[in-house]
Amino acid sequence: MIYTQNIQKLIQAFQGLPGVGPKTAQRLAFHILDTKPEVGEKLSSAIKQAQSKVAPCVQCRWLAEDDLCGICSNKNRDKGTICIVSSHQDVLAIENTGQFNGVYFVLSNCLSPLSGLGPEEIGLNELLERMRQTHHSITEIVLALSPTVEGDATCHYISDAAAEYNIQISKIARGVPLGGDLGSVDELTLVQALLQRSEA
Amino acid sequence: MIYTQNIQKLIQAFQGLPGVGPKTAQRLAFHILDTKPEVGEKLSSAIKQAQSKVAPCVQCRWLAEDDLCGICSNKNRDKGTICIVSSHQDVLAIENTGQFNGVYFVLSNCLSPLSGLGPEEIGLNELLERMRQTHHSITEIVLALSPTVEGDATCHYISDAAAEYNIQISKIARGVPLGGDLGSVDELTLVQALLQRSEA
Repeated sequence: MIYTQNIQKLIQAFQGLPGVGPKTAQRLAFHILDTKPEVGEKLSSAIKQAQSKVAPCVQCRWLAEDDLCGICSNKNRDKGTICIVSSHQDVLAIENTGQFNGVYFVLSNCLSPLSGLGPEEIGLNELLERMRQTHHSITEIVLALSPTVEGDATCHYISDAAAEYNIQISKIARGVPLGGDLGSVDELTLVQALLQRSEA
Repeated sequence: MIYTQNIQKLIQAFQGLPGVGPKTAQRLAFHILDTKPEVGEKLSSAIKQAQSKVAPCVQCRWLAEDDLCGICSNKNRDKGTICIVSSHQDVLAIENTGQFNGVYFVLSNCLSPLSGLGPEEIGLNELLERMRQTHHSITEIVLALSPTVEGDATCHYISDAAAEYNIQISKIARGVPLGGDLGSVDELTLVQALLQRSEA
């Protein structure tokens, strides 16, 4: 092997990250070794700092450094509208639209019994507990989960649980994406777009 | 800002790596925070270990953990043939061919006076010193530098320096890449391919 052991370990550590293949990992490792030591030190200490300081918000499971995250502790947000998403990235996607002023609940995935992801694993139990305690102040639950079998199963689970509290449940619309070409949209999406057609 | 300060710092640290844009940096940072802490700990300690243990080989500037790298200390390699490259990645590219059994000298870049890269900055002074000391045992210098203006300038610089020791200098061939389509090859490459044509 023409690498030393520590270079090999560094390459393997980079390969542990999502979307980083062997070539990219090699390039990143060489970059760390080739450039000023500050680049590597900055990354290594940023990882440690973030891991020790950041924890899920006790209310919504978004990332926080105090008990409550920046969204839950923001007085201008409507605490009665809870948007349920299945990853941290989804919170960002919705925040970037600038169209949602409620709060979130971040599941760590969608239900997938075959992969061993039950209600407890993805955080649904915590959501149910939150609903039980605060259902009098919840006006709407917006389900923003992926349009997949797992996403739909999770939607059903939450709808069922919310039914006993009479909370209004809504689901983000499915249809043809803007700027898309009808010819390149798959049939199932088109079926949904037809079924959910609205007055023009 | 909906991120906390430490998440922001982690994202910025990832963005300092080559080819990592804001979206990728975000995904990597969330991965570190979402998965088991081991992933982040492994990366952060691998960076520290590699930075403290790995240093350029005193002879060829390839990466080593002792004075000499695995290539220079390998008794089966032909120490008389030195291949000159301008990055660590280039060493790997040539090693992967399995066709070169000599040793290397790794410059950190090609000459580029406009970007402030003179002979000293890229390691040419060390190469000249190595040639001065060991020219009696060098049989050939293979220039494997990028086919760019900067690469050519660096080739000339090295050829001029080697001329006084009567060392044989060669340059890797330029021509049409294998599997390529003549129509998609640029004119300059085709000119080189024509000029360097060999008997069929």
